Amino acid sequence: LRLRFATVRDFTEELCRPLAVEDFVVQAMPDSSPTKWHLAHTTWFFETFLLSRWGSTYRPLSAEFRHLFNSYYNGVGKQFPRSQRGLLTRPTVEEVFAYRHTVDECVSELLASSDDAELSEIVELGIQHEQQHQELIITDVKYLFGCNPLAPVYRELGTQSSTHLPRPARWEPFSGGATWIGHDGPVFSFDNERPRHQVLLRPFELQDRLVTSGEYIEFMQDGGYRRPELWLSLGWTMVGQQTWTAPLYWSQRGGQWSEFTLGGIRPVEPHRPVTHVSYFEADAYARWRGARLPTEAEWECAATKSRIAGSFVEGQHFHPVAVNETESELAQMFGEVWQWTQSPYTPYPGYVPAAGALGEYNGKFMCNQYVLRGGSCATPASHIRPSYRNFFPADARWQFSGIRLAKDVVAGSK
Amino acid sequence: LRLRFATVRDFTEELCRPLAVEDFVVQAMPDSSPTKWHLAHTTWFFETFLLSRWGSTYRPLSAEFRHLFNSYYNGVGKQFPRSQRGLLTRPTVEEVFAYRHTVDECVSELLASSDDAELSEIVELGIQHEQQHQELIITDVKYLFGCNPLAPVYRELGTQSSTHLPRPARWEPFSGGATWIGHDGPVFSFDNERPRHQVLLRPFELQDRLVTSGEYIEFMQDGGYRRPELWLSLGWTMVGQQTWTAPLYWSQRGGQWSEFTLGGIRPVEPHRPVTHVSYFEADAYARWRGARLPTEAEWECAATKSRIAGSFVEGQHFHPVAVNETESELAQMFGEVWQWTQSPYTPYPGYVPAAGALGEYNGKFMCNQYVLRGGSCATPASHIRPSYRNFFPADARWQFSGIRLAKDVVAGSK
Amino acid sequence: LRLRFATVRDFTEELCRPLAVEDFVVQAMPDSSPTKWHLAHTTWFFETFLLSRWGSTYRPLSAEFRHLFNSYYNGVGKQFPRSQRGLLTRPTVEEVFAYRHTVDECVSELLASSDDAELSEIVELGIQHEQQHQELIITDVKYLFGCNPLAPVYRELGTQSSTHLPRPARWEPFSGGATWIGHDGPVFSFDNERPRHQVLLRPFELQDRLVTSGEYIEFMQDGGYRRPELWLSLGWTMVGQQTWTAPLYWSQRGGQWSEFTLGGIRPVEPHRPVTHVSYFEADAYARWRGARLPTEAEWECAATKSRIAGSFVEGQHFHPVAVNETESELAQMFGEVWQWTQSPYTPYPGYVPAAGALGEYNGKFMCNQYVLRGGSCATPASHIRPSYRNFFPADARWQFSGIRLAKDVVAGSK
Amino acid sequence: LRLRFATVRDFTEELCRPLAVEDFVVQAMPDSSPTKWHLAHTTWFFETFLLSRWGSTYRPLSAEFRHLFNSYYNGVGKQFPRSQRGLLTRPTVEEVFAYRHTVDECVSELLASSDDAELSEIVELGIQHEQQHQELIITDVKYLFGCNPLAPVYRELGTQSSTHLPRPARWEPFSGGATWIGHDGPVFSFDNERPRHQVLLRPFELQDRLVTSGEYIEFMQDGGYRRPELWLSLGWTMVGQQTWTAPLYWSQRGGQWSEFTLGGIRPVEPHRPVTHVSYFEADAYARWRGARLPTEAEWECAATKSRIAGSFVEGQHFHPVAVNETESELAQMFGEVWQWTQSPYTPYPGYVPAAGALGEYNGKFMCNQYVLRGGSCATPASHIRPSYRNFFPADARWQFSGIRLAKDVVAGSK
Repeated sequence: LRLRFATVRDFTEELCRPLAVEDFVVQAMPDSSPTKWHLAHTTWFFETFLLSRWGSTYRPLSAEFRHLFNSYYNGVGKQFPRSQRGLLTRPTVEEVFAYRHTVDECVSELLASSDDAELSEIVELGIQHEQQHQELIITDVKYLFGCNPLAPVYRELGTQSSTHLPRPARWEPFSGGATWIGHDGPVFSFDNERPRHQVLLRPFELQDRLVTSGEYIEFMQDGGYRRPELWLSLGWTMVGQQTWTAPLYWSQRGGQWSEFTLGGIRPVEPHRPVTHVSYFEADAYARWRGARLPTEAEWECAATKSRIAGSFVEGQHFHPVAVNETESELAQMFGEVWQWTQSPYTPYPGYVPAAGALGEYNGKFMCNQYVLRGGSCATPASHIRPSYRNFFPADARWQFSGIRLAKDVVAGSK
Repeated sequence: LRLRFATVRDFTEELCRPLAVEDFVVQAMPDSSPTKWHLAHTTWFFETFLLSRWGSTYRPLSAEFRHLFNSYYNGVGKQFPRSQRGLLTRPTVEEVFAYRHTVDECVSELLASSDDAELSEIVELGIQHEQQHQELIITDVKYLFGCNPLAPVYRELGTQSSTHLPRPARWEPFSGGATWIGHDGPVFSFDNERPRHQVLLRPFELQDRLVTSGEYIEFMQDGGYRRPELWLSLGWTMVGQQTWTAPLYWSQRGGQWSEFTLGGIRPVEPHRPVTHVSYFEADAYARWRGARLPTEAEWECAATKSRIAGSFVEGQHFHPVAVNETESELAQMFGEVWQWTQSPYTPYPGYVPAAGALGEYNGKFMCNQYVLRGGSCATPASHIRPSYRNFFPADARWQFSGIRLAKDVVAGSK
Repeated sequence: LRLRFATVRDFTEELCRPLAVEDFVVQAMPDSSPTKWHLAHTTWFFETFLLSRWGSTYRPLSAEFRHLFNSYYNGVGKQFPRSQRGLLTRPTVEEVFAYRHTVDECVSELLASSDDAELSEIVELGIQHEQQHQELIITDVKYLFGCNPLAPVYRELGTQSSTHLPRPARWEPFSGGATWIGHDGPVFSFDNERPRHQVLLRPFELQDRLVTSGEYIEFMQDGGYRRPELWLSLGWTMVGQQTWTAPLYWSQRGGQWSEFTLGGIRPVEPHRPVTHVSYFEADAYARWRGARLPTEAEWECAATKSRIAGSFVEGQHFHPVAVNETESELAQMFGEVWQWTQSPYTPYPGYVPAAGALGEYNGKFMCNQYVLRGGSCATPASHIRPSYRNFFPADARWQFSGIRLAKDVVAGSK
Repeated sequence: LRLRFATVRDFTEELCRPLAVEDFVVQAMPDSSPTKWHLAHTTWFFETFLLSRWGSTYRPLSAEFRHLFNSYYNGVGKQFPRSQRGLLTRPTVEEVFAYRHTVDECVSELLASSDDAELSEIVELGIQHEQQHQELIITDVKYLFGCNPLAPVYRELGTQSSTHLPRPARWEPFSGGATWIGHDGPVFSFDNERPRHQVLLRPFELQDRLVTSGEYIEFMQDGGYRRPELWLSLGWTMVGQQTWTAPLYWSQRGGQWSEFTLGGIRPVEPHRPVTHVSYFEADAYARWRGARLPTEAEWECAATKSRIAGSFVEGQHFHPVAVNETESELAQMFGEVWQWTQSPYTPYPGYVPAAGALGEYNGKFMCNQYVLRGGSCATPASHIRPSYRNFFPADARWQFSGIRLAKDVVAGSK
């Protein structure tokens, strides 16, 4: 555990290496946070839930940090307003790193000297929490750079060997029936993945790979963004208000679609999975294809048979990669892009949030959000599980979110 | 059918009798509509979906009405902006009634001369639609009058014979298991109630009556509106932004709670069901009691055994009534107040919306809303069913919405 | 005075004659008010400032009216929020008329029995106040009807005998120098017109008639609304935000400009004065012509020589009328449209507001408004004076506001 | 000129010395800008108006800068949106300094090789422009730091020798009459100070020093922020919306007023001039004292007799300093705090803006702003003049703005 703690904490700093000091400071929109804030908040998490309880010799660097870097834990006290995180030019980046290192040393000593089970559990939670913020650092930096007409490069992207269009998608059938979903067992999971329980599924089919940018362009060319009958009512309102005509980061230059990536502006490659679409766009695309999005139970039912392989943050592609031609059966279930499901984020039957302030981690967000599954090219590989539930509001687009299609088996009586 | 058509249409006008001409015109908030608009829009529904197809001799009174009184049917063309419905002082109330009567005559003739099945189906849908707007007329007028410091009286409310506090609530157990929900059979239902399908339920318990105002005041007195740990995150934001400290229409005068009703301002009576609470308040109340809201499947499973009895709009109470002391078992499942469930409003597995513009009736609103069940004192009795799914956003309070508690059976493994 | 009181009060009701009950109720935007509110507020004025002091036998119809119909007099107590005036469907129109007549009788009796000078002054002020609201009734009803796709007709407009383009505008020179402006003497004036004082004017010229719609179309055709260099910075922001491309009420149908008038939608007639332009548009137009707007001192200096003649509300044109070909010298100084001046609305040197709550009439609005002069086709003729200062924010367009050009005499050293 | 250019440009960088890299990046509110942006924009000014015309060998570092660092010159092309200046983490601070130095060298060479009069004029304008942004750097950094609960220190403030309350203010009389104001002659001035012209002034009096914090506290203690009769209507709205109860940066800790300064949080010292008040507060304070604010003409008439002495940015007080006890007559006319006048910012009679894009410097902002006079402790001493017209909207508080009282001479007939 001590080693994993160190490895994960170091990897966060590794992800910051391409950034200039200036890049750590700014909050480009209310839903994103400055990198500096992510670095401090994940540290605050260990300080608050671990050191303030077990770290008998630990003395906080600054009492103000308790307030400044609290995200949303009312149980720990008032929070500095989320929308103003970008105003905090101090502490400086250097001071935040010093804060991290002080806390890291303390946690490391604690881990060396204690094997309290509860302590280990909180360290494990803190590591998982750190990994979630690693993904947010990537997506928030992408959003920040995407606002800048200079289109800064985070890291040069590799080119993909094959640029062939992927094989046509096939429909993979599942028989449904009473199915167990959710997490059980000793391995870590978040409280929102529990308890494991049975659901009844009707027979269904999933497409055996992700929807590609090329396929999505067909939707656009068929007037997808101009036809209200394809959209949820709130989605159609959004299209109008935000003047959406393509996924986030796409722009048209001379008849060709380009997209801003972490490697700068590049032509949209049709064989790669489409990404940075909202739930509304995913849902409209599916309706246009005469299909639908999977429920999270269907997705999990299918995913338990899949190997956890694909592009994750460790692979440093920082962009979803086209399906491997030779891959068989259900491809791209993990990595590349988060897959929107049609399931609102709700508590599983019998759900019990963790006790105390840590109970605020998941449960209180179960309103007006949709579940996404499978992880993305910005997710740590060791962080994802078949039962993992990510969640975002229906209009969120700055995550690496994409589409897999599902449909009912036609024989079913309706 | 022709008789039902006439009866229902007349009843709408009956509900308007207490109104002055001035009361028909104003839109008190974006979610409500002027009574005049309700009268015209329900008429437009018959004109658009029935007369423009079957009414060979029908000539529209005004071509502009097609646009002015279209609510949200993109398939029928552009709509006049919802938020500006209150700007239309013309057509006058008298002209709108004339519009109604012209269309009514035409529909009546059509029904006398044809028994086309599809035609009958649309008339039936139009009648159900009319009944939904009857409820909205009541709730929208209440909201409008509630904004007026003169607190106008819509109709004098009766006093309730007994003012005793109701018997303590008991927990009614249900065994769960594979359970059929949804509508089937020849009787009318909306497309969102179909298809009938099985769900797996764990054992659960429901309280055998609605939560009362007296019980809700205990929540308030225990700091319910000041304790973030009881609230969903979005709910807590709402409490702050809207400075909620009590249900809608409540105000404190000299230490006592009063509420604005359709009979004017009256003391809050502790034995009546609490109403005009949002999903957020219902959910927080349940958490505070150590319970939860039922899912819509649990509710429907329980309700199929209940008689459809209680206060409906025909009873003209215009306010929820306390539970009858002698009533046995599961009381108040229908009428009085809509019961918030914890279920987001989603399509049933295999859901297929109606074809054409009428397909916009329900499906496109399946996002960021919660299901309510059971009807209210403003719902027509003939309109409600066990499988009936009403839906509103989590912050809506102007409907007669209330609370029934549920909980897991403790023996169950979690 | 008693006769004038009766005449002016009656004329207000005369202006309401074309309205349906529905038209009295609605507030079409925050800056406008329902006609019903105007009727009640002007009555409240007499009740509050006159009857509550001198009307020993007067008993208020409703204590709530003191609050409901107070516009902005903090000295009299809290006001019902301005933006919610349209929510008050009660008191009904009939009740408001009853309120008026009760107060009218009382005032009339009081006037018959007393010749207290202070009392007379307040009645005079109340009459002038009533006349201001007569103009607002006209402009607010126009705005309300203008929002309605049915384009209701308030009253049929007469056609103008001549449709010839007016003679070219000529520049009328004024020598400037030390000039007296402001009001003095026994005749009524508002406190903001006093004290009479001297200002220094440089030689200047005024155009001898108002700018016409035809001339304004030339500005539009020359890209007036697309050229930032013609606009004040705030004006240019407004053009973008509000997507202004023409005066308020104008729309293009088949290449021709139409405008909504109190007589319905009619072709824009090029020889009539342009109206419903904001200060920003008037200023941009003047800059485009190489001219400027007059200062209020220049305007008043010129106007003292002019007869008060032109279209006023009594003439019932309800639309500005083209200049009379035979008219000589400085035409259209009064009536037709209010003339924007380049003068911010500020206190005259030595300005002292009236004592008590009546001191809130003018002084507290002297911020971020511009002075307009001359009256309009909706102003009572007996209400206007050369020293009369009307004022509106720079973006206001719903008044009958128009343009007269001024320029410096070129010989002047700059 | 070449030396002045170098000195002023260097001083800008001198002012940045206390800042961490992080502090250069953030835009704390729409009206402020990041320091980095100020550094780049002032450089852009020389690049755009000088080098692109005379710098034959100059090659722009980045074509994008033309767009990114254009503030509001429509004549030069589209601008990057003002409210998003804080999103530009790139170019980095280092790159911006490199940009400065490249342009500086080029300008310096140009000045060494040419004495073109027009070129000199633009350099002079650029220097004045640079000085304006020096003041903005100070006030914007103060605002940024003031948002941070850590209350960073920009530079330690000196303590003032005397902490005695200043002598009571005396009224200094002026006889008025025809008075010349505005700038004339060869020395630099902005176009808005010209042409010099005569105005008629009535006799008036000015207080012989600025209003102090101690005096302002008396206003607060007398309910100044709770009495609508003291306020302009828009000001009173502002008090409510922004919940103003004291000047910006003030907070109450244990019954004592503290204020955030560029030296951190310090007790409010009653003998120092009050600052960070809006026009609304200055106007309300004056009314409460039975006085008024001076017009800009009155102020200039009085100031021409005063020496330009006081705290300026070069003195590095970074906070207004109490009046010197021995100072005679009219003290503190320059430096310390900008003095709100009651004059809206309007063109002088005969005003002609500069030609081309530089004409956008002043004229287009002449709407809804008030003139301030005299400079502040953040203004360069060499930048101020008796005729200098600064301007801000009536609700602006983040500048070092303060109050001097004026009044009419009582003998005057009103």
